[in-house]
Amino acid sequence: QTEVQSSVVGMHPRGTITVYDQRYFQGRRMEFTACCQNIMECGMENIRSLKVECGAWVGYEHSSFCGQQFILEKGDYPCFESYMGSNSYRIERMISFRPICCANHKDSRMTVYELENMMGRQFELCDDYPSLQAMGWIHNEVGSMQIQCGAFVCYQYPGYRGYQYIMECDCHGGEYKCYREYGTHAQTPQIQSIRRIQH
Amino acid sequence: QTEVQSSVVGMHPRGTITVYDQRYFQGRRMEFTACCQNIMECGMENIRSLKVECGAWVGYEHSSFCGQQFILEKGDYPCFESYMGSNSYRIERMISFRPICCANHKDSRMTVYELENMMGRQFELCDDYPSLQAMGWIHNEVGSMQIQCGAFVCYQYPGYRGYQYIMECDCHGGEYKCYREYGTHAQTPQIQSIRRIQH
Repeated sequence: QTEVQSSVVGMHPRGTITVYDQRYFQGRRMEFTACCQNIMECGMENIRSLKVECGAWVGYEHSSFCGQQFILEKGDYPCFESYMGSNSYRIERMISFRPICCANHKDSRMTVYELENMMGRQFELCDDYPSLQAMGWIHNEVGSMQIQCGAFVCYQYPGYRGYQYIMECDCHGGEYKCYREYGTHAQTPQIQSIRRIQH
Repeated sequence: QTEVQSSVVGMHPRGTITVYDQRYFQGRRMEFTACCQNIMECGMENIRSLKVECGAWVGYEHSSFCGQQFILEKGDYPCFESYMGSNSYRIERMISFRPICCANHKDSRMTVYELENMMGRQFELCDDYPSLQAMGWIHNEVGSMQIQCGAFVCYQYPGYRGYQYIMECDCHGGEYKCYREYGTHAQTPQIQSIRRIQH
């Protein structure tokens, strides 16, 4: 059973993701090269496994790119546990997804601020930080942030755990002025690890 | 209520971890500067939150450094979800822990092999790889590995998700000849992301 949905390619000429409606790459299969706002409109009730063949993608809990976010890089994701973070609010849904426009690692650059609206102490990041506190950031929170170049994943806990927030220079003009802009699921400004995204 | 257990310091002159028997840094509190083989022998039935003040540590599901492993870097871990990976087998226990001896990021070096006993294709790693497949490794498995310098976390799924395996040049002479040596909880050789550990 193979269905291919080709569409005009957006930012990623060769970004490809294959999704399945059953665990371990079983059941109905669809291949995408551009964003999907609602997998149910393609006749699938949910996505239970997937393979990223090319590019970097973000998966979302709800349709229209809402709810929890999951960074999806090249590789095999055989079950829900493989895309989720380690959240207490455990979801088993991925209904929409889209490709991300990244930069080369060496060009990626963002600034974190202590307070909302780019106020207070600040720190410029251009690397991967499994612990912001280890690099000298004294808080377990980030009040606001600005992405100058590329795309980053920010995580609630150290070591790339907990809620994920995908931040891009191409969204909001790269400005995230308070934690409510980090994602529709953000409940606090708690962020303790950050890394770059690359294809 | 504060209890401090000082002990002869091993590899990390200033490594410090504070553990609590209740979530959100509540309840009984103990501070450690060296390894703990069984928190129950210190009169705590479990660890439900913790703060790493300095150094990098590994937490274990069972006593004597057995069962699931969790990398713990500087920062605040208010609940189980903040130390666990995104595993289907969800545990709510951390009974032993120890500090890890790391290297500087620029010195960290390891080799992954396609087959057991350092056979088949190989690839030398000296960076962080959220997707091994994106760097050209065609498998979603690693048959064996050798750590030449430093310490690494290997993960079952891309993007630093799933089971964690802590690999050190100082353990087993840095040699992990088959997946059963990756950890007592390893059930398959599936490894899709790897990163360096640094204090």
